[in-house]
Amino acid sequence: MQHLRELYRQKNFQQLIEELNGLHEADLAEYFKELDGDERIILFRFLKKDLAARVFSYMEKEEQMGLINAITDHSLRDLLAGLAFDDKIDLLEEMPANVAKKILQNVSGDERKIINQFLKFPENSAGSIMTIEYVDLKEHYTVGYALDHIRKTGVNKETIYTCYVIDGNRRLRGTVSLKDIIMADPDITVGELMEEKTISVQTTDDQEEVAALFKKYDLLSVPVLDHENRLIGIITIDDIIDVIEEEGTEDFYRMAAMEATEDDYLSTGVFTLAKKRILWLMVLMVSATITGNIIGHFQAVLHSALSLTVFIPMLMGTGGNAGAQSSTLIIRGMAVGELKRRDALRVLFKELRVSLVVGAALGIVNYARIILFAGESTTVALTVSITVFLTIVLAKLTGSILPIVAKSIGLDPALIAAPLLTTIIDALALLVYFNIALMVLGPSLTAG
Amino acid sequence: MQHLRELYRQKNFQQLIEELNGLHEADLAEYFKELDGDERIILFRFLKKDLAARVFSYMEKEEQMGLINAITDHSLRDLLAGLAFDDKIDLLEEMPANVAKKILQNVSGDERKIINQFLKFPENSAGSIMTIEYVDLKEHYTVGYALDHIRKTGVNKETIYTCYVIDGNRRLRGTVSLKDIIMADPDITVGELMEEKTISVQTTDDQEEVAALFKKYDLLSVPVLDHENRLIGIITIDDIIDVIEEEGTEDFYRMAAMEATEDDYLSTGVFTLAKKRILWLMVLMVSATITGNIIGHFQAVLHSALSLTVFIPMLMGTGGNAGAQSSTLIIRGMAVGELKRRDALRVLFKELRVSLVVGAALGIVNYARIILFAGESTTVALTVSITVFLTIVLAKLTGSILPIVAKSIGLDPALIAAPLLTTIIDALALLVYFNIALMVLGPSLTAG
Repeated sequence: MQHLRELYRQKNFQQLIEELNGLHEADLAEYFKELDGDERIILFRFLKKDLAARVFSYMEKEEQMGLINAITDHSLRDLLAGLAFDDKIDLLEEMPANVAKKILQNVSGDERKIINQFLKFPENSAGSIMTIEYVDLKEHYTVGYALDHIRKTGVNKETIYTCYVIDGNRRLRGTVSLKDIIMADPDITVGELMEEKTISVQTTDDQEEVAALFKKYDLLSVPVLDHENRLIGIITIDDIIDVIEEEGTEDFYRMAAMEATEDDYLSTGVFTLAKKRILWLMVLMVSATITGNIIGHFQAVLHSALSLTVFIPMLMGTGGNAGAQSSTLIIRGMAVGELKRRDALRVLFKELRVSLVVGAALGIVNYARIILFAGESTTVALTVSITVFLTIVLAKLTGSILPIVAKSIGLDPALIAAPLLTTIIDALALLVYFNIALMVLGPSLTAG
Repeated sequence: MQHLRELYRQKNFQQLIEELNGLHEADLAEYFKELDGDERIILFRFLKKDLAARVFSYMEKEEQMGLINAITDHSLRDLLAGLAFDDKIDLLEEMPANVAKKILQNVSGDERKIINQFLKFPENSAGSIMTIEYVDLKEHYTVGYALDHIRKTGVNKETIYTCYVIDGNRRLRGTVSLKDIIMADPDITVGELMEEKTISVQTTDDQEEVAALFKKYDLLSVPVLDHENRLIGIITIDDIIDVIEEEGTEDFYRMAAMEATEDDYLSTGVFTLAKKRILWLMVLMVSATITGNIIGHFQAVLHSALSLTVFIPMLMGTGGNAGAQSSTLIIRGMAVGELKRRDALRVLFKELRVSLVVGAALGIVNYARIILFAGESTTVALTVSITVFLTIVLAKLTGSILPIVAKSIGLDPALIAAPLLTTIIDALALLVYFNIALMVLGPSLTAG
């Protein structure tokens, strides 16, 4: 790409135009990202119409906005004509009102009407990610006629590999793949060839559920129906890959006690980012009062055996880690559909057994470590090691139960797990610790 | 599905066979999972050959093993004939040696030879997820001849929507979509129609990099070449969706300090699961010695002002959470390709500013909380609140720098972040706390 900069600096525009138009749209979009606004606009004008539209659909919100503001209405009309319908909807959803207005002024009245209907679908619904670019056929068409029909109308359709068979009221009757059409005898009808058992979704379905269907049935596209089962759009797999990634990111964020941002990290403001993080940190900070109170309550114990304080961070840390392992495993298992609610008891029993093994191993290593390296008495070592064992068992059970309970009462397991889990485990670890200390060290504590 | 159980109990097999063969393979596989081994084998025999093979490819390892052991060589041959080539490879990779042997005995000698070559590709490489079922064309074919060729050879090919154009040495010359073939004049040649700028991968490329290409270029399939650029397979998008999910799961696990398991959770043994978790917990437990030592070192301070102990869990927790937010954001941003290494300085500067806002907000709330509810002196409140502020700033910077450094020295950021981060932040939080305490409370500590 250094080479392209060189051509631009030398004002060798003819060569530059040729080379730009020979690149892939994804690579061009990446290159354009590096340029300053003016150079980007100049180079963008050098692209052929259809390539320009494809590059545009790969760009970030800010770059798109800059271009729309810089080009004439005429160029904007060309650009919009080259965009896929769902990309137009995405664009309108992201642009501020004045830019959106400029866009809507440059589409035909018919299209504006459909666009306005599509903009009404709730965020993250099937309706909000579908496109209207598909091929529809009628049952009475012969295969030969259908193929001609596809040839005539299919050029600009986002996918022509699955065709949708509808009746006179646009109700979905079935689907037929292009593969079956080209393999079939040209004289049989589409009705004879089509697959009637069709998997479809409703406009109001959540995009996460739609993604689950794609995974379950290995789909390349799915028809979207309205409440009267009329076909109004399709969702294609490239958009589903984005959904899968978005939902994954949302879970990552929530498990790290943050709200997800819609925008790209680098283009989100400092205060917006801070706002997404403060609430949970605040909740966690205040809920740590509980652990503080437990320590306050047992201060007499600590005062008699101050060396016990040394092990508090390790115990809370180990408990937190052990619990996070279980909760992560179960939250992710549920998210990808590997674990169903009916598996709950088997999961709990398995985590219990795993926690016994892990707890015993860590308890023993910890005992040895304290005796050999920390120079503490066997009673202190015993107190700490029993606590390690019990904390791990309790932490893993809490970590397993919490997401399952959250899911069964309709809460997002990822959202609830991080904040609640740490607080609960910290409190449990300390309660176990001080009570074991009183039991094991009891005599020496009163003596001290 | 209750209905199917009823038919089975009534031994109404004719009706049962009809209904079973009318279901989608994914739903059948889900139903079969619920059955015990014997009933599963009986019902499986009721399925038509091609449906049986499709259901089989959806099953879990254990179920597949049970079926292979139960059926005759003849049925196994039918089953294998119906499986896609990449599903056969997956199956062989998962089965124990004796079952794999039974499978290899029931494929043709030619296929066995190819299978053995494919089994040699390293795990997680492009070679290990590709299939040999694609359509290849020659440049001199006319479009009409190409379409006939697809009709003749394409029926069992996994995807026929992208055809691969090769020369006499099987070197890839370009690709042509079925869409372009059916739209084109039947008399022009494939060479004139094909797209020469083809994105391809090598057999040894990592599957994660391949997935990144699919996302970047919105691909449905990609050709896989050997070191001499000969076409030897293709990778299709359905397998890439699995890769994206697998890689996401791996990151989730690593960030929760676990190794990923290849198998399904429920079918993995307790000791295997325990082994995947013990190592990191052990490392974290032992590294917590550092924080223990810091507390030990400053025990005189705690002895003079024991109420400081009460705030240790809150400080460590808040630091850990603030750091995890930053590291999660950056690890995920790098994993999905949103953040590149060249963005490192911008990210650090942004996280610094966010941390100042978040730290100040939490510090102030914390000061008010301690004064109003904890009944501590203003000097204690000041000590704790300054520590909250500084800990958050340090935690967020550490959380941002660590993944970037890990990536730049070739380590997996997800793997390194969780264990190291908590230990570092805990130590930093305590060092800040005790030093601030000595400064702010210094006079009263010596007095006390």
